[in-house]
Amino acid sequence: MTRAEARRAPQDFDRVLSSMCTDPHPAAREAAQRFLATNPGDPETYPTVTELEREAVGMLGDVVELDDPHGYVAAGGTEANLQAVRAARNLADGDDVNVVAPESAHFSFQKAADVLDVELRLAPTDDDHRADVDAAADLADDDTAVVVGVAGTTEYGRVDPIPALADVAADVDASLHVDAAWGGFVLPFTDHDWNFADAPVDTMTIDPHKVGQAPVPAGGFLARDPETLDALAIATPYLESDTQPTLGGTRSGAGVAGAHAALEALWPAGYRETYERSQANADYLAAELSARGYDVVEPELPLVAADLPDGEFRALRDRGWRISRTASNALRVVCMPHVTREMLDAFLADIDAVA
Amino acid sequence: MTRAEARRAPQDFDRVLSSMCTDPHPAAREAAQRFLATNPGDPETYPTVTELEREAVGMLGDVVELDDPHGYVAAGGTEANLQAVRAARNLADGDDVNVVAPESAHFSFQKAADVLDVELRLAPTDDDHRADVDAAADLADDDTAVVVGVAGTTEYGRVDPIPALADVAADVDASLHVDAAWGGFVLPFTDHDWNFADAPVDTMTIDPHKVGQAPVPAGGFLARDPETLDALAIATPYLESDTQPTLGGTRSGAGVAGAHAALEALWPAGYRETYERSQANADYLAAELSARGYDVVEPELPLVAADLPDGEFRALRDRGWRISRTASNALRVVCMPHVTREMLDAFLADIDAVA
Repeated sequence: MTRAEARRAPQDFDRVLSSMCTDPHPAAREAAQRFLATNPGDPETYPTVTELEREAVGMLGDVVELDDPHGYVAAGGTEANLQAVRAARNLADGDDVNVVAPESAHFSFQKAADVLDVELRLAPTDDDHRADVDAAADLADDDTAVVVGVAGTTEYGRVDPIPALADVAADVDASLHVDAAWGGFVLPFTDHDWNFADAPVDTMTIDPHKVGQAPVPAGGFLARDPETLDALAIATPYLESDTQPTLGGTRSGAGVAGAHAALEALWPAGYRETYERSQANADYLAAELSARGYDVVEPELPLVAADLPDGEFRALRDRGWRISRTASNALRVVCMPHVTREMLDAFLADIDAVA
Repeated sequence: MTRAEARRAPQDFDRVLSSMCTDPHPAAREAAQRFLATNPGDPETYPTVTELEREAVGMLGDVVELDDPHGYVAAGGTEANLQAVRAARNLADGDDVNVVAPESAHFSFQKAADVLDVELRLAPTDDDHRADVDAAADLADDDTAVVVGVAGTTEYGRVDPIPALADVAADVDASLHVDAAWGGFVLPFTDHDWNFADAPVDTMTIDPHKVGQAPVPAGGFLARDPETLDALAIATPYLESDTQPTLGGTRSGAGVAGAHAALEALWPAGYRETYERSQANADYLAAELSARGYDVVEPELPLVAADLPDGEFRALRDRGWRISRTASNALRVVCMPHVTREMLDAFLADIDAVA
């Protein structure tokens, strides 16, 4: 440890309620540490981690019910969302491509629109924070390259009506992208329609480094058809491989090995247990906040949003709680795997103290 | 360790001659492991790693002679190059933006051109593999947003005439980007003109995870002016910070902490020692290959290129050597910090055996 770092420690998770990152599974941490100095972006030099990536993509296919998935372990959900839009743009005819997404879509779609120079058309959400399908249909036209649905929104944990959005996409010959960056590891244990078997989904974002309990950076980009990856391929003249579909060049072997180890250790039983515990925690927190008189958005997935006065929010941050707010200023608590009942009780006690 | 991984180990570096990654410095590895579960993309939740990133950018400023640098630790050189082009595109007037770069530029500029939907104009290189300045000037026009120079090319380790390219950029009111992804940690110990003090450079790529001996993912994106970062900023509604200039959302705290620790441990004395040893190794290998009758490109920086018959190349790969070829089919050996004289002697012995 260097001198400066002796003074400084990484964030503990015991007061982190805002993050969609979590403490990695021990096997995933160990694998990440072992593969820290590898580069899956150079398969001929680092073949072992390339093999791990192929297997990790296969296991992600199991999670999302897609046989023979095409994709890779991305740096994160932003890259995966950007690549979905990029592939759709590259495959579309015409120069004035647009993307239709609900206004609940993650800000990475704003970033993608700027980076890729495409128009982002945002459809309003309904009273329960889900994409308004009629509004999305009104926005979609012949220049729409891709329609986006979110399976587990960042702010309210809501699942958009994916099959209905697939119809919207089909009507204008656009592709359908599902952003399950956060939701992808809880939705298999629910009744929602969200995956490649539930609807004609073309591409999906599902991040091992969120509920998948892999260390950062481990996002997931999956496609039904190989043509999607082909639309992203760039020639790689000095490597002994031919082309590269990824956004990055050198990539994290730690992320790949960590994702592989987490999936191997946890799919499906471990993820199911985590989901059940996290959902129970979210239901508990929601009930306790309601009992105290706060307006609470019912947690459909393990994410609780509630109105909290600014003064209380700031007082809780001053007590060390890592919490954040939605665009409409609601407190959001993400019941990630590291969030325990004891943490929530301590949080509730502090709410009572500052209220 | 999981069962499947017990069978599989990461690539050792004892036969890796093609990679621009290397064995991380022990302090950097340790820091990366400690900060594996942090996210510098969420500064209000993970303040410590955010502080480390600010300091790492400051130290990178010292390496490139830029006071008050603006930038961040990127996922790698591809992201940094893409962001330089994106910022220049966003700051430029007009819709038909182009980028002028030497044909020796890394393939990440092809990727950036596709992603960002800009035209890439490639200028030929001269007899010594450097950008032909007159050709670059001929390609540049009013729609040129950025002129690229490479300080340490991927294939031949050459340094483009950066001050002359700065003049080309100035003549058409374009910005100047220097790609020192690989060269940035050796050039401070040479007489080349390449950095922010040597020329009116606007942006630079310099990767801690290459010669900087940080673990992957740790690229570096630096800008002289804050307006460059402003041109990349996207609003972040649900985070307690306001905007985000990075390409990724969730980012690797391991990369940031590793880069910080490597810079703190090695700048400048450790990097100087590494450079001197690596350059001596490259000179040695070049002399030995010349003595055996191979055509060798003189190693200006620690990278040796030489003509080698295809059969010998394949035979060496069969013996486990991780080597690669340039677009014109020359063998390239990158004398990274992990490459020792003993490795090169073993490699030469195998060349003699397969010749």
